Amino acid sequence: MNASITGRTRLVFLAGDPVGHTRGYAEYATAFAERGIDAAYLPADVPAGRFESFLAGLTSVRNVAGVVATVPHKQDAARLGAPDERARRSGAANVLRPVSGGWACTELDGAGFLVAVDAAGIGLAGRSVQLLGAGGAGRSVAMAIASRGPARLLVHDLDGGRAARLVADLRTHFGLVPSEAGLDRSEVLVNCTTVGLRATDGLPVAADLVPRHGAVYDVVNRADTALMLEATERGSRADHGRSMMLAQIPLIVSYLFGA
Amino acid sequence: MNASITGRTRLVFLAGDPVGHTRGYAEYATAFAERGIDAAYLPADVPAGRFESFLAGLTSVRNVAGVVATVPHKQDAARLGAPDERARRSGAANVLRPVSGGWACTELDGAGFLVAVDAAGIGLAGRSVQLLGAGGAGRSVAMAIASRGPARLLVHDLDGGRAARLVADLRTHFGLVPSEAGLDRSEVLVNCTTVGLRATDGLPVAADLVPRHGAVYDVVNRADTALMLEATERGSRADHGRSMMLAQIPLIVSYLFGA
Repeated sequence: MNASITGRTRLVFLAGDPVGHTRGYAEYATAFAERGIDAAYLPADVPAGRFESFLAGLTSVRNVAGVVATVPHKQDAARLGAPDERARRSGAANVLRPVSGGWACTELDGAGFLVAVDAAGIGLAGRSVQLLGAGGAGRSVAMAIASRGPARLLVHDLDGGRAARLVADLRTHFGLVPSEAGLDRSEVLVNCTTVGLRATDGLPVAADLVPRHGAVYDVVNRADTALMLEATERGSRADHGRSMMLAQIPLIVSYLFGA
Repeated sequence: MNASITGRTRLVFLAGDPVGHTRGYAEYATAFAERGIDAAYLPADVPAGRFESFLAGLTSVRNVAGVVATVPHKQDAARLGAPDERARRSGAANVLRPVSGGWACTELDGAGFLVAVDAAGIGLAGRSVQLLGAGGAGRSVAMAIASRGPARLLVHDLDGGRAARLVADLRTHFGLVPSEAGLDRSEVLVNCTTVGLRATDGLPVAADLVPRHGAVYDVVNRADTALMLEATERGSRADHGRSMMLAQIPLIVSYLFGA
């Protein structure tokens, strides 16, 4: 249950496409209630390419406290808001707050990812890591992985140019980490594609590239993806996007409300 | 308490300025729950002159079910949506729903007002009625009053041109009702100005124009306005905007959700 809406409730939107599957509404309501914040966290089903128009309209609404951006809006978010250091480095943002004259934005997927893998006991330092997906979430998670000093970071994306751009940016910011575009066996596999969002989706990668007795983190917020099942089958430590979403709630509430 | 928000919740906004004092959130949540509708009714603090920009942004959000417009947006609403007969006649609208290519709008203040005065035992037919305020709500309520055949309908507004335009429109649509711009003693006084919204507000009219042993309806949604107190003091039947707001909920839910 959510706290009562009043005429003074401030609005936080989760903008994505699709948005029907998204979760966390009850957890945000609890976080607001615990901090005495009169706010509501709400889905906004914003099609690809319409994020700018959506944001423009919100500048006419004084009780908007912020916007959380998910697929496919994270790169638009970084372009439309004034990015902080995290968002600038990853070229993606997932939280915007209104400021005089527009929006400021930050990127908290990376920080949420690190809290989540630490809690799951998934080590990154000195390991070979395979990242799938170089979109908004992939860029943010890649920078977070690199910050932990993996032995190697391979980036794969169906769009080869997107993978190459991310690798170039990784080399700029983390020159000591061997980063390459490619797809290979690894000790830690991280899925940042949207494969798995739909119940009918299969694996995002060939089964023999899912680590055996290694670790898998699937950013998709479902416990029952084909990747999660395959990882468990292969005796790998496995965790998924729910822990990353939960880890971000206090960070996002703090960014938006300073509380 | 409101039902839980999910990723599939549809959004209905109450857009106004000010909006902090607005009520009805719990009542809308109950109406949605009773009909099995997954929707949330939310305040949107939209400054005067920004309603068009607000609406434009909402066309990028697929889960918006509608907008309820209150002061000062009712005349903008009628201009920006395709108006039905009620909205066209009153030149004001208070509910918009998304349609292909934009918005459709209707005006339900008048219908809500009639349900409310009937429930309060305030007769209009054959009475002399003084209306205060010829803005969006005033226009809608004036048409509703005229439809009941009062002996006389006087319209007062600090903006004399606005009062004159409303009287001209009343004469067009209700030629048999004696309508004039002016301010005089009456049997039924109806306040459609915003005087009373703030706790520090006084009467919207000189005290000796508040009917004695007559009736007063104050569209302001507060039981404690100076006008409500003065009316009671003078032995007049008195009711206020809460009943009009409540009467509109089933009409608005039906317009937006067909339920």
